[in-house]
Amino acid sequence: MKIEIINTGSELLLGATLNTHGAWIGDALFRLGLRVQRQNTVPDGEAITCALQEAMSRSDAVIVTGGIGPTSDDLSREALAKVLDLPLVEDPEALRAIQAYFTRLDRDMAEDNNKQAFKPEGCTCLPNHNGTAPGVYSPPELSPKQNCSVFLLPGPPGEMHPMFENELIPRLLEQADSLSESWSQPSIQTLRFTGIGESDFHARLNRAFSQIPHLEIGYCARPGELDLRLIGNRNSIEEAADLARSAFPKQCFSKSGQSLEERVVELLGKQGKQLSTAESCTGGRIANRITDVPGASSVFTHGFVSYSNEAKQALLGVEQGLLDQFGAVSEPVALAMAQGAREKSSADIAVAVTGIAGPDGGSADKPVGTVWLAVSTSKQNKAVHAYYPRGRENFKQLVSQKALDLVRLALEP
Amino acid sequence: MKIEIINTGSELLLGATLNTHGAWIGDALFRLGLRVQRQNTVPDGEAITCALQEAMSRSDAVIVTGGIGPTSDDLSREALAKVLDLPLVEDPEALRAIQAYFTRLDRDMAEDNNKQAFKPEGCTCLPNHNGTAPGVYSPPELSPKQNCSVFLLPGPPGEMHPMFENELIPRLLEQADSLSESWSQPSIQTLRFTGIGESDFHARLNRAFSQIPHLEIGYCARPGELDLRLIGNRNSIEEAADLARSAFPKQCFSKSGQSLEERVVELLGKQGKQLSTAESCTGGRIANRITDVPGASSVFTHGFVSYSNEAKQALLGVEQGLLDQFGAVSEPVALAMAQGAREKSSADIAVAVTGIAGPDGGSADKPVGTVWLAVSTSKQNKAVHAYYPRGRENFKQLVSQKALDLVRLALEP
Repeated sequence: MKIEIINTGSELLLGATLNTHGAWIGDALFRLGLRVQRQNTVPDGEAITCALQEAMSRSDAVIVTGGIGPTSDDLSREALAKVLDLPLVEDPEALRAIQAYFTRLDRDMAEDNNKQAFKPEGCTCLPNHNGTAPGVYSPPELSPKQNCSVFLLPGPPGEMHPMFENELIPRLLEQADSLSESWSQPSIQTLRFTGIGESDFHARLNRAFSQIPHLEIGYCARPGELDLRLIGNRNSIEEAADLARSAFPKQCFSKSGQSLEERVVELLGKQGKQLSTAESCTGGRIANRITDVPGASSVFTHGFVSYSNEAKQALLGVEQGLLDQFGAVSEPVALAMAQGAREKSSADIAVAVTGIAGPDGGSADKPVGTVWLAVSTSKQNKAVHAYYPRGRENFKQLVSQKALDLVRLALEP
Repeated sequence: MKIEIINTGSELLLGATLNTHGAWIGDALFRLGLRVQRQNTVPDGEAITCALQEAMSRSDAVIVTGGIGPTSDDLSREALAKVLDLPLVEDPEALRAIQAYFTRLDRDMAEDNNKQAFKPEGCTCLPNHNGTAPGVYSPPELSPKQNCSVFLLPGPPGEMHPMFENELIPRLLEQADSLSESWSQPSIQTLRFTGIGESDFHARLNRAFSQIPHLEIGYCARPGELDLRLIGNRNSIEEAADLARSAFPKQCFSKSGQSLEERVVELLGKQGKQLSTAESCTGGRIANRITDVPGASSVFTHGFVSYSNEAKQALLGVEQGLLDQFGAVSEPVALAMAQGAREKSSADIAVAVTGIAGPDGGSADKPVGTVWLAVSTSKQNKAVHAYYPRGRENFKQLVSQKALDLVRLALEP
């Protein structure tokens, strides 16, 4: 089945916004055993029509993101109507849903939103529970060659993703089934690692992987994290997963694509333990990641952001003498922060970080990127030094990753 | 001048790798007054030839990234030779440069690398000082319609970016100059708004905008935030920006694309004030956003994440009676949290949030999505109610946005 993506939005071509839809859709379809043949980005406006016509001429399905909002540069509906050579008609049910959306938010509906209830005649509006713009589905038989389905999806990820899952996937799979070519859902498993780089991982395991039949390997590296994607038959995947896990037992934190914070919350929950955080240089990122996980409230109650020395003293009871003698970015201060956080919150385990995120604040012996991390439990206090001279944003992410991993390692059975 | 980008690489379509080249090139060209008309992503292999042919038929310049490496799926050179109908010939100087690169790294050169010294006859190899693969430049006169230049650039950003700057830009600008159509560097301004939806904004201003000549309008909506992008000549942009600002004076937080947290840190810094945060349902996200801004340490010293009732009492001095009588998600508790945070930290201004992020924890009178926010200064304490039934991730982002905006409005002159 040939599938093509069209992402619309001038901001994507101006460089103002990174196109994340292409990768998200590619990944989601791949999990179903389908592959994207081509992806196109076009500016808002007339160019959509031309791109849609081309894509429909060579594909079985075209997925369009964006251009179905209420404003004058939103023209995906018009483009589809033109290519199908069908008039735009109002969908009364879609209009009611848009009105209900505004009522639920207790806001007045602007006149312009009416436009969003229109669809090319014979198409289906796809409900949007997270925004005003309904999607549009055009079945294959409406297309010029009667073989190509078209999906118009909203641009905001929070609206596009659920509509993709709930409305697009079932229709696309039905179409794939009806195509004479056979397709089968491959098995896929994603293992996640932290504390090991892609090239080291590759050097250690590539030869062994290459001897496993019916296996396709993919890597995805993010700051402080490496995904290993295994595609193939069950036996091959199992063999490769076992190899990877036994080569890097401590570094493997997930066998199912779970995030590091999800794993930490799961471990805490299973053991009935409470976590507390004391953050200087990460400024709340560790707490934010923990509380991104539904149900975090049962394992995380107190977090401290002690950005200044005064805050470290007042909130965590770090002694002035330690700060004077060793400086805020030091092993003794990290340890005192972790211990203070644990005691002030009555938590079972606490993690603390203190470092220099930059761009300012570095010195010759403590350059930007320097950080001390500490974990405190009733049994032991332990500190670790790290150095991430990689820019403020990467630094915060890498330190939060390391901190969560220290908690995980302290909890792993 | 019509410019098109082709990014090659199967990993971009599998979702394993985010395509950052499109945005980077779009931005780099826009700064020169040039715009990308379209961007395409194709898998490694034969598909490149077809995409190249199409793009060359409708453009003045085509920029290809990737597919010039040493492996068997690197076929951009072959694709270009095919479209130009020219043989591939070895470039002795390019071969010497590749050999020298390996010598410099003290590594043996693999046989496969020879392939990289080939180019379609009449083209120019572009030196690569950061990797083994030289780029290829095909001047307009070699193309079928004698009007389209082609650049083959390496995939790794560290190799592509310098080659783009040093080799591509001068050639592209020369071609732009030689085209009969005049081109001039357009002006661009991005204004940012919060607390106003895209459709309301559009309904209020679209008619007025449409009467301003030489103006291109673009919108980009994110949770709780709206970008208005103005492109055109200086006068038109100024007129449109004035219109937008006077229609929504309170909602406009940036005239230069600054983020909300950057604006808050800037206002605090200018006024020599300190901020403190007391977060329940956002779990550290407000503090994390503030500390994403370089220099935040001079205006933000203490942050509290009080996820439980006990933490609200212990860290912020919220009275048990208030929690019992009104519940944790209530106006009095939000006010007490803000006041407590301000007093415990000696900050000039504090913001507090308490709400129900979900998916659990809602009730009939306080459903998931309910939140109370409060701001406390020495002069006044003020609380606001909001309701964002939009899923945990959106909820956290929208509440942090509203909280930062309350701080901004309290500080705006």
